[in-house]
Amino acid sequence: MKLASLKNGSRDGKLVVVSRDLKKAVAVPHIAATMQYVLDHWSSLAPALAEVYQGLNHGTVQDEFVFNEQECESPLPRAYQWADGSAYVNHVELVRRARNSEMPPSFWTDPLMYQGGSDDFIGPRDNVEVVSEEYGIDFEGEVAVITGDVAMASTPEQARSQIRLVMLVNDVSLRGLIPNELAKGFGFFQSKPASAFSPVAVTPEELGSNWQDAKLHLPLISHLNGKLFGKPNAGVDMTFDFGQLVAHAAKTRNLGAGAVIGSGTVSNKQGTEYGTSIDEGGLGYSCIAEVRMIETIRDGKPATGFMKFGDRIRLEMLDAEGKSIFGAIDQQVVAYQAP
Amino acid sequence: MKLASLKNGSRDGKLVVVSRDLKKAVAVPHIAATMQYVLDHWSSLAPALAEVYQGLNHGTVQDEFVFNEQECESPLPRAYQWADGSAYVNHVELVRRARNSEMPPSFWTDPLMYQGGSDDFIGPRDNVEVVSEEYGIDFEGEVAVITGDVAMASTPEQARSQIRLVMLVNDVSLRGLIPNELAKGFGFFQSKPASAFSPVAVTPEELGSNWQDAKLHLPLISHLNGKLFGKPNAGVDMTFDFGQLVAHAAKTRNLGAGAVIGSGTVSNKQGTEYGTSIDEGGLGYSCIAEVRMIETIRDGKPATGFMKFGDRIRLEMLDAEGKSIFGAIDQQVVAYQAP
Repeated sequence: MKLASLKNGSRDGKLVVVSRDLKKAVAVPHIAATMQYVLDHWSSLAPALAEVYQGLNHGTVQDEFVFNEQECESPLPRAYQWADGSAYVNHVELVRRARNSEMPPSFWTDPLMYQGGSDDFIGPRDNVEVVSEEYGIDFEGEVAVITGDVAMASTPEQARSQIRLVMLVNDVSLRGLIPNELAKGFGFFQSKPASAFSPVAVTPEELGSNWQDAKLHLPLISHLNGKLFGKPNAGVDMTFDFGQLVAHAAKTRNLGAGAVIGSGTVSNKQGTEYGTSIDEGGLGYSCIAEVRMIETIRDGKPATGFMKFGDRIRLEMLDAEGKSIFGAIDQQVVAYQAP
Repeated sequence: MKLASLKNGSRDGKLVVVSRDLKKAVAVPHIAATMQYVLDHWSSLAPALAEVYQGLNHGTVQDEFVFNEQECESPLPRAYQWADGSAYVNHVELVRRARNSEMPPSFWTDPLMYQGGSDDFIGPRDNVEVVSEEYGIDFEGEVAVITGDVAMASTPEQARSQIRLVMLVNDVSLRGLIPNELAKGFGFFQSKPASAFSPVAVTPEELGSNWQDAKLHLPLISHLNGKLFGKPNAGVDMTFDFGQLVAHAAKTRNLGAGAVIGSGTVSNKQGTEYGTSIDEGGLGYSCIAEVRMIETIRDGKPATGFMKFGDRIRLEMLDAEGKSIFGAIDQQVVAYQAP
């Protein structure tokens, strides 16, 4: 099934069930008012929601209305946990090379993961507000899952069974702030402002054969200012599946229902050393930093700039029939105005 | 006023107002059911809660009952944000020296901060469950604040006005996992398991003259296995006040109501190079790692071991009359048993 949270002036939005084709939605106040409430009571509420979903797809529910992605919050407008891995090690290798930093071989066996801010996600069509272009504004196209309760020290297999929903993410990154922040040794903080998630969160079974081995086997399509920027397959070159990432996050702690775990930037090697850009006939990338690195390797310096105020990024994933599965993240970068 | 969350089988506990002397409490379902709800609607609800608090102190409220710290969750049993600074730079210097890592001078002007897991805090009297003693189990005694909404790029002064509540923290640390994790460059994750907060959260005005310049000017008293371990003053040697820490966290993002921002381990220099232990007649420390470093400086190697299963840590802060302000964090370390 497909679920979304509509903006309604509250901090948590209004839970709706969305039809498979993303054309219709229906509120379910008799089942749950918010996405977090569903996740808190998944096993008792999911069957009723699935029934509504079937009815919505067959046109047999009352009070359905036109679904509008513009009105969406992120599926969890705020969450108790947002931990982002780096499962596409190609991305890590490239970005570290861009920072003149060697990648230890252990990165192929021990996932990288940072904890992000989850108290104020932005919606999939909200502006990305940044104080200064000098921060080096970049997008990162990723896949993320929302978990149920995951017990400490769960195995990857146990963790896989706790994956409730799948989404796309724009993990906005401020490249200019990263080197100084990582040099301090405590990881990302200011360099990772609010993330945005796709309008719709989708159960793994809804993804059918595209969800296998706890990976999503479809291209993640990104357009920067309307021009195709990347279409790498999220199921390819993913060194750690979502079960491994969730288990990594839970090694020394329980994860509470509604924890969001990200894949890291989707990146394919495409049979080359580091992948190839769209302009070169390749599958492209899911962030600007990787293109800049390829340019540096090829030309000695990067040619592509980071995002400027007014620039727009669109992230989407299509099914075999070319229909959007999660709806689109489509955001403009703008100058932050203090309230 | 003083607020707490009692265990009631739910994920968020039951909000209660607690009397100044921590002897009585009263539920306030007509005002708010949970702590997060209060924080989400602070300006409209705080006056009514303050009225209940006054009545409770004067013995004029109905349905009061005996307050029992054993029955408490952390004031926020789960939170949307938990970011922990390192405001006592003495602690940072010592711990980094223990890791043979020099401290850059910028650490005196640019706060260190990491993002912690906030989806599953443990209660102040709950066991600290750890898979293995080999992880190097340590406590860290700290002060933390809970904020209201803080706008991106707020100044420290603006941030100070958004401090709603003050608590104590045991920021459990797994020292054995830290070196490998920091070497990966993404900061702490598995090395920082679930934190516990004091039974009661207290408004800054309730702290009177002990709350000045967004610092809490009282000794943080720790007992390890019943023996006094430290009593450094949380208002001394705090290089960054809570306004600066909150502003640091909000530099590139909004903070949502209920964000928890920690001070880092309380540590005093005590007129010496790195402070002095209780055994040496000093004020002691708020974590084992610092004692081990002092021992290393003095004797060439550490003598004090990290915590073993069965060990107990108690953290508390007393007012001028010797009465507990926040109630006590009092936790035993035990071997984790999978459910």
